[in-house]
Amino acid sequence: MKNPISVKIAYIGGGSRYWAKMVLTDLAMEAGLTGELALYDIDYEAAAQNERFSEELAKHPDALSPFQVRAHKKLADALRGADFVFMSILPGRMQLMAHDLDIPAAFGIRQTVGDTTGPGGISRALRTIPTYTAYAEHIMEHCPQAWVINYTNPMTLCTAALYAVAPKIKAIGCCHEVFGTQSKLAGLVHRKMGVPEPHRSEIKLDVSGVNHFTFATRASWKGENLFPLLDTYLSDEYDWSDQSAGAAEQIAEGKFFGSRSMVAYDFYRRFGALGAAGDRHLVEFVPWYLSSIETLHRHGVVETPSSFRLGTWQAPANRPGAAEDKADEDKRPLLEKPLQHSGEEGVAQVMALAGGQPLDTNVNMPNLGQMPRIAPGVIVETNAQIRANEITPVVATPLPEALQSLVQRVVDVQSLTLQAGLRQDPQLALQALQLDPLCGHLPLQRLEELLHQLLNTNREALPDGFF
Amino acid sequence: MKNPISVKIAYIGGGSRYWAKMVLTDLAMEAGLTGELALYDIDYEAAAQNERFSEELAKHPDALSPFQVRAHKKLADALRGADFVFMSILPGRMQLMAHDLDIPAAFGIRQTVGDTTGPGGISRALRTIPTYTAYAEHIMEHCPQAWVINYTNPMTLCTAALYAVAPKIKAIGCCHEVFGTQSKLAGLVHRKMGVPEPHRSEIKLDVSGVNHFTFATRASWKGENLFPLLDTYLSDEYDWSDQSAGAAEQIAEGKFFGSRSMVAYDFYRRFGALGAAGDRHLVEFVPWYLSSIETLHRHGVVETPSSFRLGTWQAPANRPGAAEDKADEDKRPLLEKPLQHSGEEGVAQVMALAGGQPLDTNVNMPNLGQMPRIAPGVIVETNAQIRANEITPVVATPLPEALQSLVQRVVDVQSLTLQAGLRQDPQLALQALQLDPLCGHLPLQRLEELLHQLLNTNREALPDGFF
Amino acid sequence: MKNPISVKIAYIGGGSRYWAKMVLTDLAMEAGLTGELALYDIDYEAAAQNERFSEELAKHPDALSPFQVRAHKKLADALRGADFVFMSILPGRMQLMAHDLDIPAAFGIRQTVGDTTGPGGISRALRTIPTYTAYAEHIMEHCPQAWVINYTNPMTLCTAALYAVAPKIKAIGCCHEVFGTQSKLAGLVHRKMGVPEPHRSEIKLDVSGVNHFTFATRASWKGENLFPLLDTYLSDEYDWSDQSAGAAEQIAEGKFFGSRSMVAYDFYRRFGALGAAGDRHLVEFVPWYLSSIETLHRHGVVETPSSFRLGTWQAPANRPGAAEDKADEDKRPLLEKPLQHSGEEGVAQVMALAGGQPLDTNVNMPNLGQMPRIAPGVIVETNAQIRANEITPVVATPLPEALQSLVQRVVDVQSLTLQAGLRQDPQLALQALQLDPLCGHLPLQRLEELLHQLLNTNREALPDGFF
Amino acid sequence: MKNPISVKIAYIGGGSRYWAKMVLTDLAMEAGLTGELALYDIDYEAAAQNERFSEELAKHPDALSPFQVRAHKKLADALRGADFVFMSILPGRMQLMAHDLDIPAAFGIRQTVGDTTGPGGISRALRTIPTYTAYAEHIMEHCPQAWVINYTNPMTLCTAALYAVAPKIKAIGCCHEVFGTQSKLAGLVHRKMGVPEPHRSEIKLDVSGVNHFTFATRASWKGENLFPLLDTYLSDEYDWSDQSAGAAEQIAEGKFFGSRSMVAYDFYRRFGALGAAGDRHLVEFVPWYLSSIETLHRHGVVETPSSFRLGTWQAPANRPGAAEDKADEDKRPLLEKPLQHSGEEGVAQVMALAGGQPLDTNVNMPNLGQMPRIAPGVIVETNAQIRANEITPVVATPLPEALQSLVQRVVDVQSLTLQAGLRQDPQLALQALQLDPLCGHLPLQRLEELLHQLLNTNREALPDGFF
Repeated sequence: MKNPISVKIAYIGGGSRYWAKMVLTDLAMEAGLTGELALYDIDYEAAAQNERFSEELAKHPDALSPFQVRAHKKLADALRGADFVFMSILPGRMQLMAHDLDIPAAFGIRQTVGDTTGPGGISRALRTIPTYTAYAEHIMEHCPQAWVINYTNPMTLCTAALYAVAPKIKAIGCCHEVFGTQSKLAGLVHRKMGVPEPHRSEIKLDVSGVNHFTFATRASWKGENLFPLLDTYLSDEYDWSDQSAGAAEQIAEGKFFGSRSMVAYDFYRRFGALGAAGDRHLVEFVPWYLSSIETLHRHGVVETPSSFRLGTWQAPANRPGAAEDKADEDKRPLLEKPLQHSGEEGVAQVMALAGGQPLDTNVNMPNLGQMPRIAPGVIVETNAQIRANEITPVVATPLPEALQSLVQRVVDVQSLTLQAGLRQDPQLALQALQLDPLCGHLPLQRLEELLHQLLNTNREALPDGFF
Repeated sequence: MKNPISVKIAYIGGGSRYWAKMVLTDLAMEAGLTGELALYDIDYEAAAQNERFSEELAKHPDALSPFQVRAHKKLADALRGADFVFMSILPGRMQLMAHDLDIPAAFGIRQTVGDTTGPGGISRALRTIPTYTAYAEHIMEHCPQAWVINYTNPMTLCTAALYAVAPKIKAIGCCHEVFGTQSKLAGLVHRKMGVPEPHRSEIKLDVSGVNHFTFATRASWKGENLFPLLDTYLSDEYDWSDQSAGAAEQIAEGKFFGSRSMVAYDFYRRFGALGAAGDRHLVEFVPWYLSSIETLHRHGVVETPSSFRLGTWQAPANRPGAAEDKADEDKRPLLEKPLQHSGEEGVAQVMALAGGQPLDTNVNMPNLGQMPRIAPGVIVETNAQIRANEITPVVATPLPEALQSLVQRVVDVQSLTLQAGLRQDPQLALQALQLDPLCGHLPLQRLEELLHQLLNTNREALPDGFF
Repeated sequence: MKNPISVKIAYIGGGSRYWAKMVLTDLAMEAGLTGELALYDIDYEAAAQNERFSEELAKHPDALSPFQVRAHKKLADALRGADFVFMSILPGRMQLMAHDLDIPAAFGIRQTVGDTTGPGGISRALRTIPTYTAYAEHIMEHCPQAWVINYTNPMTLCTAALYAVAPKIKAIGCCHEVFGTQSKLAGLVHRKMGVPEPHRSEIKLDVSGVNHFTFATRASWKGENLFPLLDTYLSDEYDWSDQSAGAAEQIAEGKFFGSRSMVAYDFYRRFGALGAAGDRHLVEFVPWYLSSIETLHRHGVVETPSSFRLGTWQAPANRPGAAEDKADEDKRPLLEKPLQHSGEEGVAQVMALAGGQPLDTNVNMPNLGQMPRIAPGVIVETNAQIRANEITPVVATPLPEALQSLVQRVVDVQSLTLQAGLRQDPQLALQALQLDPLCGHLPLQRLEELLHQLLNTNREALPDGFF
Repeated sequence: MKNPISVKIAYIGGGSRYWAKMVLTDLAMEAGLTGELALYDIDYEAAAQNERFSEELAKHPDALSPFQVRAHKKLADALRGADFVFMSILPGRMQLMAHDLDIPAAFGIRQTVGDTTGPGGISRALRTIPTYTAYAEHIMEHCPQAWVINYTNPMTLCTAALYAVAPKIKAIGCCHEVFGTQSKLAGLVHRKMGVPEPHRSEIKLDVSGVNHFTFATRASWKGENLFPLLDTYLSDEYDWSDQSAGAAEQIAEGKFFGSRSMVAYDFYRRFGALGAAGDRHLVEFVPWYLSSIETLHRHGVVETPSSFRLGTWQAPANRPGAAEDKADEDKRPLLEKPLQHSGEEGVAQVMALAGGQPLDTNVNMPNLGQMPRIAPGVIVETNAQIRANEITPVVATPLPEALQSLVQRVVDVQSLTLQAGLRQDPQLALQALQLDPLCGHLPLQRLEELLHQLLNTNREALPDGFF
């Protein structure tokens, strides 16, 4: 048997109670990898708790190759010598995320998630960009050769902010939304082809777009084109009727994340490429589904209320810049049961980059040609090869024309938002809102008020240049 | 003195009572040009009337170089041997244009003009495209070397339809909207610089965009940058207040075309390039001003009611494909007064192409590099050099990023509309509506109903493939 | 154990004595694959011999999954229902290849290979293009969904000719030149890193360029950048001295294929990317090494004399369009020894496309974005992912500027040659010669004479349009 | 009558005896322009002499609007407040230009001019680039809004060097080579169309390429396509025979500048676009005509011997960086005869930029879209509109494919040369030589020796970084 590969991973936002523990668990279960995990969090105590958790974890019988876990008070100490940097933070206090939803709602703009696009996403981006540019500088100082894997949203703009100040940084953004699409199709393969359900990773998607607004232009299982199968399913079996009743039920039960993928499928039948993120995300990039709550519910999608978020991610809400987190981990006596893999790919990516099992997956990275109709350097999400110390994007099949236009528009809004954040320019932020698909129909005076409120509410997290 | 240049001009839509007479008058006043004007109209009698009008005109003392004007019953006869083809028709009965406004209005979508973009423009385009592709084939058969000058709206898509079937056609689209912007700035030069008001053509604009959604990225008079002057004017003098009262007055008086250019100026102060078409057009390309009638009026812009159009262009309303026209020419006893130049550039363009006075002006033509960020071949509006038998576009200054994005979106909607028209594909037409800035926020079901009504109402003017 | 995958492979040029037997052997050794191999050759008898050979082969103990092999008299029968088409033919009689070398030599232009570029390659391309466009039409008629794997040279132009008439064909060109570069580096890893020599496929190269003029912009083994290792080797150990003596020896011994990779290394030290084809090929794309035989020998490279080729590929020389072949297979009593894998990747590619083991390798295919500075659609050679029924190119690292220019020039010469072949236009062929790096310094009159002789000599293999 | 426009022109290289006097004379004859001409020269005394010359000139009866001419010892004083900067210098001592020709000649590379391309041009560029980057910085400090009009060769790289350090500089390069092509065609119009010879400016050329390697893709007079006329002339009348005898005569008579345009015409008949620079320049960009002196003479072109240059531009030869100049001005008792316009366009350009008569002409400036297949920012030569305080390029008709490739190659060589000069990198300079059409066929060892000699000979004019 081969010796495990030894690496140092720095974890910015390492005080999280939920994500960090998943990462620790996945690492512990990966026999091929060992080394050092340096936790950094602006809430040091939270990181220190995770250090203690890792000691317990190491004793678990399923822990195959425990990492040496250590909480650091200084970022430099965490970063120095790192081969990998994980970034997963909460941009600003949790309460600000609630405002990202509630303020636009007062202007009639509802968002199902609010962390990526629309006024909520723009607001969140503006307070994240300065944090990320600062981290980029630290990384280039202390571990310029490290691979940076970002999990924070807004994914695209966090990644773009890193490259804006450090063009040579080796950063990607990772997101699991596409996994859900693979799983749906895996289920379809099972039901329609009479075979055991394949693992989601056997479903090959040709993914392209920008994070949370991605599309599969091709889908196959063992070389079999799955779109004819999907056509039959959608025309013969799928229930396209009004899903308002189901939505009401979801809300009553507090189940805010489910959906029947009606929106992903609707993109497919209208435009010819399958939505490859969850419906909660997809609806935020176009105006059609969020034009009213009724329309949203009709498609079987519900909002995640800000109150729910505040309840779930309670504590760190008051620790701006600390790890984004959930409050419910107490309900997960992780260490008392067989260890469970999170299903995330972070550790698999580290393995592949460290020279282990190669991985072909979708990543967010600068456009080098993988989407030839998008400008070079824009952060796009497509398939890529992850190999020993290399990530190389794969050329994506061109999107259908209408989708290409919709993606381009998102790219433009994000570009304006990035410039607004880098230059601390409220006028560019207003332009971003003006172009945003969810805001555009507001009169300009109202958009100005909306921006004004968003900026003022975020004042604690924004540089002075904005005011 | 030089002999006049002799040319043959074919005029498709030559039965118009208003436009054709202006053209006839402008031609008569141009001493440098003579030859033959072949009028063709699906309403032959209307063309024959214009032939008789021209005989009267020739007797007018201001008529310097009368053309031989002849109405033709066969298109081939009009086209054969033509050096120039003017195209100015009404796409479908006038009543259909009323529907282009009224049907969307029933869905809550108001349009100030409705002939270029939005659901009205898309509807009009769908019935125009087959007419234009047919004309393109006739032109390539009978006078493939002729210069084709189109005046019909939707300008961009009419011109694009010609090139779609006849890539070697020598066609441009001409529009006078930019003249208004020049005039405004000429007035400003007069008032602020203490000089007599220059002729509008002395105001040099660097124009770019697509027809009716164009912007001046630079403006100068005798080399003097006019933007600082405009800055002062807009910040110190211009009345940005609510213009609802004025709008109400306009409506009461039936003055549907005026505006205070508040929208053109608003683009300028927000984005850095000056709207270079009338406000009535500009507002239709973005969602912000037409979000409600109140918002529109607040900016001093009013709708042109469909009833007004029906009243004005009465008669030809029942002659689909005949010349677009106005009913009021009886009020213009043209021949009793000194002849008046229309202010249009059509005859100047013919002169320049025929080897007379060179002309630098804005034209609509395929993108050959004049707008490097727009795809090649797209019909764009920028400055161009018109010289003897040559039209060469001039490279435009790049638009500010947000405007570039807005223009790209219009280009995409138009591209989908063109494909819809060429392939007779209602699904592509629906995609065009989905992406259109005025429609996007409607739920998809409503958009489908809107399209359904538009197609059905236009059934007489659409090919069967749509149904 | 899994059942073998069953496919039908059509083999155009299936009468070859050498290549076809290698393919038959590789197929026989691949337990995972079975099915039907349909041999087609304009020399039917040769194909029939291979059918008989396959019967013997099936009895060999190493034959794991014998194919049903059948020679066909009609191309349509061979192609019908094929999942794969192999193409490996000799374009024109062998004697013509000798002329490709000897005629230019009389004009002072020496070529080491003469099948890809330079006057020899252009001559060969002109007689190949009509053959390939005809095959493309047959393939699209009889098996439009088949994967076409071309081995014939000129690789780029054969593949380009297929796409020129059948844009939807699923064709790639395959070449083993890069394997040699991998092997060299594998040897280096062994010698310098003190590990057993890795298999060549473990050496990861980021390949780009056009066939036979490819470069590795990155090279790694298990994530370790090999360029520092190569730097040390080239500066400390490599013998850069005059290799004329060695070249003389090679010639004396009739060893015309060896080289010390001095040219590949010279590209690396001058331009920063490693030549990834054999020196015999690389020298033909630039003027520096073939400026004289002395200069060539100084770099340790020798010409393959046409007499040698005629001797080796004797018999089929008189069968124009038949399989390119070697005469020496009698010396290889293939069936008496343990079967030996050819080292080629053709069968591995079929396996990957048929849903077996995925393969990442370099292929020749239209540019979809993998080389963003080369025009779309140009046939380039880069890495690609071969998966079940999919080949997707991987984005290549940009070439250093000077190499990009050299590659662009080759692309331009090939584009002119392709147009010359498709339009049967000798003037375009002359333009190709004028731009070709090996010919450019000839006075134009001499170039015209050269072209004249080449065309006349190839008259039997060229369409009438050329004369 | 309008008052003359008043401007300040700074003249770098203002000590020239020939060019400066032409400029002074042209300015004096232009009634519409007046103001200040600030002469700067590293040879102050030479500039002072021109100041005195101007006093004489002012007394001439043909002097309509004499400028106030003043020689300055400090560059800053000359530049401060300038509206225009003329740049016309000799890069390095005249003797170095002789070496630019003689050293390559010793390696078998002959050049007819040697100031633009080939080893001579590259050598000259390397010593010019640092001078120009320094001037660019001075201009941006003292008169950043001035229009900079460069006359120095290598035109493209001088202009490129300005933009490399000052991207916002308003610089163009001006060259009169195209005038010759216009004159030839004007003569043809006269002879073949039976009209008085038109002024060269009436011949409209669609020019594109890079300076001295430009092509007319269209040519017309009063809208009449001149190419059919040219076709007839070249096939029926033009003497294509060996011109060696004529060349010998030219050399015997010391007439080194004439030619019969055989090369310009040869480009036309081979590639479809007319060479738009003199044959002496055109032959240097391709290998075919300079492959031997015999071949050159056969085309009626002769070299300008370095001895002739040394004789002609005697004195300033020893003033590196001083104005490039001719020694023969004593033979031109300029002031005793009616003043003669130089035929150059510099003053007309100033007039147009200053708000006078607009000018459409060819200029060298960064590519903004005028040549869409060339990368943005590359200095290209195409038509442009010169208007009051504006220069806007006109989109050029695409070059025929083979010419596009030849131009791209020149662009690449120039890009490498520019980078070599800016980074002081001899390896990049070697790459430029390797790619240069005149040098490419030399063995690399010889090219290295050639570069070595060129650099060493230029050591006095090169920064230390090169050594």
